[in-house]
Amino acid sequence: MKYVLLALLMATPALADEYRATGDLGLIVERATGSLVVVDQSDRAAIGRIEGLGDLSHASLVYSPDERYAYVFGRDGGLSKVDILSREIVARVLQAGNSIGGAISDDGTLVAVSNYEPGGVRVFDAKTLEMVADIPTASKTIGLVDAPGRRFVFTLWDKGETWIADMKGAEPAITKVTGMGTNPYDALLAGDGRTYITGLFGEDGLTALDLWDETPEPIRVLPGYGRGEEELPVYKMPHLEGWAEAAGEFVLPAVGHHEVLWIDASDFTETGRTQTHGQPVFAMARPDGRQVWVNFAHPLNDTVQVIDRMTHEVIHEMKPGPAVLHMEFTPRGHEVWISVRDENRVDIYDTETFEKLGEVAAESPSGIFFTARAHRTGL
Amino acid sequence: MKYVLLALLMATPALADEYRATGDLGLIVERATGSLVVVDQSDRAAIGRIEGLGDLSHASLVYSPDERYAYVFGRDGGLSKVDILSREIVARVLQAGNSIGGAISDDGTLVAVSNYEPGGVRVFDAKTLEMVADIPTASKTIGLVDAPGRRFVFTLWDKGETWIADMKGAEPAITKVTGMGTNPYDALLAGDGRTYITGLFGEDGLTALDLWDETPEPIRVLPGYGRGEEELPVYKMPHLEGWAEAAGEFVLPAVGHHEVLWIDASDFTETGRTQTHGQPVFAMARPDGRQVWVNFAHPLNDTVQVIDRMTHEVIHEMKPGPAVLHMEFTPRGHEVWISVRDENRVDIYDTETFEKLGEVAAESPSGIFFTARAHRTGL
Repeated sequence: MKYVLLALLMATPALADEYRATGDLGLIVERATGSLVVVDQSDRAAIGRIEGLGDLSHASLVYSPDERYAYVFGRDGGLSKVDILSREIVARVLQAGNSIGGAISDDGTLVAVSNYEPGGVRVFDAKTLEMVADIPTASKTIGLVDAPGRRFVFTLWDKGETWIADMKGAEPAITKVTGMGTNPYDALLAGDGRTYITGLFGEDGLTALDLWDETPEPIRVLPGYGRGEEELPVYKMPHLEGWAEAAGEFVLPAVGHHEVLWIDASDFTETGRTQTHGQPVFAMARPDGRQVWVNFAHPLNDTVQVIDRMTHEVIHEMKPGPAVLHMEFTPRGHEVWISVRDENRVDIYDTETFEKLGEVAAESPSGIFFTARAHRTGL
Repeated sequence: MKYVLLALLMATPALADEYRATGDLGLIVERATGSLVVVDQSDRAAIGRIEGLGDLSHASLVYSPDERYAYVFGRDGGLSKVDILSREIVARVLQAGNSIGGAISDDGTLVAVSNYEPGGVRVFDAKTLEMVADIPTASKTIGLVDAPGRRFVFTLWDKGETWIADMKGAEPAITKVTGMGTNPYDALLAGDGRTYITGLFGEDGLTALDLWDETPEPIRVLPGYGRGEEELPVYKMPHLEGWAEAAGEFVLPAVGHHEVLWIDASDFTETGRTQTHGQPVFAMARPDGRQVWVNFAHPLNDTVQVIDRMTHEVIHEMKPGPAVLHMEFTPRGHEVWISVRDENRVDIYDTETFEKLGEVAAESPSGIFFTARAHRTGL
């Protein structure tokens, strides 16, 4: 009897995996094939694939607090809940025509999606994906993040407003902040959930909000800084989300310039600029804030530069390959994973020695998301 | 055949749990019985117990990067590796006569233990618990933390030195910083792994180190602050570890006084003091830094106070019950778990409304540790 049981167990992959912890897992978006590769960060290896997720160009995802489920936000308006242990889609809704990003509430019970078509934010029960709130905005919405206190914060492209939706009660309680600027195109929330910064497409500078303020007011950041009179060509608008705070400074990719900007996190004054290889797309601080890693827009997107937080100088440059789209640090920052789309590969580097430690195969990889994000605010 | 297999499966608890993610689990130390309660933070419930861990008074623990294993540091010098999924001790060594705390390297491969008897730090392979390095100090060692770059930092009570052990090579490379002060008794590392602060028992003030400095030098903090000329009785030395940074300020429990101290995180100057109910033991910032929760030394240890970071004022007081020993926030700060030792209970509170949400039974509970610590530096 015992022998039979053993044989059966070994034939059943699910049971062989019975004790799979989830703290060091992750998902890589395969944009062309609408699939996700499940990876083990400690083993530097792919361990499975989840398919059937629709249009994953520009897709992002968030994790449930137990680090078992991911909520995947597809460009086609699809919201999918996947189980990274069983590697199945457990729920999926087509909730809008065109969407851009989402967030999960601090208690893990609500998932919100930001939509272009129709505009607005829709909020879903994290267990079932039933819609629990619909927040029309009569505008494209961008920069949706979760904030402490069961709140979502998002910004209206057409109206230049930021809305704070408090979801503690039966109905969303909305605080509207006007005057955020012309055509905010993306935003970030600092890791402590206090400072929200929007980038502007329609005018120079950025706009910050102090969410600890009872009545937050727009704070102009670098009002004289922008594309300038030359109207430089912008190959790709930079992303603002990600780890952008490093030891008391924010580091932001400049729009249309070959540089990143450093801003004092307490008073929003400029503290420096660093010339870079190309137009930055992501400027991401290593979790300890000591380094900032930058990738670039087409046609210079084969390169990554590393900037030292203390000196603001480029200390390392590497060329992982054509179309570096995203970078993800291990939670304590000792390694970084870099997606090289056109070589169907994710490279893994040591962040101290810059030595390449391994690689994982993936079809046209874009975003890389480790489960540790479940425990962070605003990611 | 199928029926038989099913029956067997149901009789085996391990198999029934096959898909148990680990991101929202935790362990509560039961100090009197040498056991750990395994808890599910989302369900606010105990889900199991692990026994046979020896003397767990003053015990602490750290987690493996996959959030599956905990390394438990007992006061009796025992180092135990437990599997929170199978709920078993998978390895255990009695590595010293009397030890106090430990840490895990940023890559998860090394576990270090700080010893009183004999003094020094011993480093073990995280997989097997085989000793890989012995670092004698001829002193009791305290304040052991992990720092980025596969380093451990710890301090010598008898010599007033802080040692930085770089474990990247075959042998530990030790940097010794002298002049840290008389009898440092505990230390903390800020969440970014940069600032290390020791509390002093033998003289007034504290001492900080900037670990980003190539040759770190002791920085005196509040040199005029201490027990004062009255030589106040100290019922319990406060703990310094824990979340002590809140929006650019450190908050530290004062020694022998009924107050906490606020210090500017960038220049270490005092920014304020808050009078408290008793002698603080832990002053812990909610992960977003907006609130600081404080518990107190005997005989005032039935009380918890909540201080607002913006005003430095006490905004809430509660009396969970006799002998409040520890507090642990959920990773994004929406709830806090509080151990009430003499009522054999851990209470769960909403940190916004202060409403009690639930409780978990535990024998003389002390430390509470959620798995999200796996992804943090210096905890």
